[in-house]
Amino acid sequence: MDPDQVAKAFVEHYYTTFDANRTGLANLYQEGSMLTFEGQKIQGSQSIVAKLTSLPFAQCQHSITTVDCQPSGPAGGMLVFVSGNLQLAGEQHALKFVDFVVKLTALIASL
Amino acid sequence: MDPDQVAKAFVEHYYTTFDANRTGLANLYQEGSMLTFEGQKIQGSQSIVAKLTSLPFAQCQHSITTVDCQPSGPAGGMLVFVSGNLQLAGEQHALKFVDFVVKLTALIASL
Repeated sequence: MDPDQVAKAFVEHYYTTFDANRTGLANLYQEGSMLTFEGQKIQGSQSIVAKLTSLPFAQCQHSITTVDCQPSGPAGGMLVFVSGNLQLAGEQHALKFVDFVVKLTALIASL
Repeated sequence: MDPDQVAKAFVEHYYTTFDANRTGLANLYQEGSMLTFEGQKIQGSQSIVAKLTSLPFAQCQHSITTVDCQPSGPAGGMLVFVSGNLQLAGEQHALKFVDFVVKLTALIASL
């Protein structure tokens, strides 16, 4: 399977889960995972999901504009860069967002 | 030295070089380096600098707004995420940019 397609499928799955059931994101992080959120570093699946579920909006919808990915490191890892719009319930205008930097090592290695 | 400070110093050096002497960026890439530019993947120092020097503007000035970094992988690597404004000569308004995803393995390992 094309790594680009894997990355796009992962991104779609991640944001669909984020918008529908934020606590379900816990399965997509590991204990060594790190989230940097507006300068704050948060480590581990449980802490990351606690942060994401504490964000001051209940309902949101991400629309993806671009997904760029490239191989990273000798272990078959991958970096993914995502940009798009984030529409919050009750807000007229969507916010622009740029997100991650995910290292999909385990996912790619399992192909 | 604090890795965050190393990352910030690198980012400052990178953009100062970009704005003053784009060909000087060649020293900051290796043969295994990859640039993803608007969906196009470009590999190797020489090809990356050829791309950057072919961009359709001669003079520019980057202003950094945020630098976020976090450790990546067991080898002491680091991911850096940068956002800011890009002012092109002769243009009234600055462009927003978000940049990289640099893996500063060698730099950090040498500390």
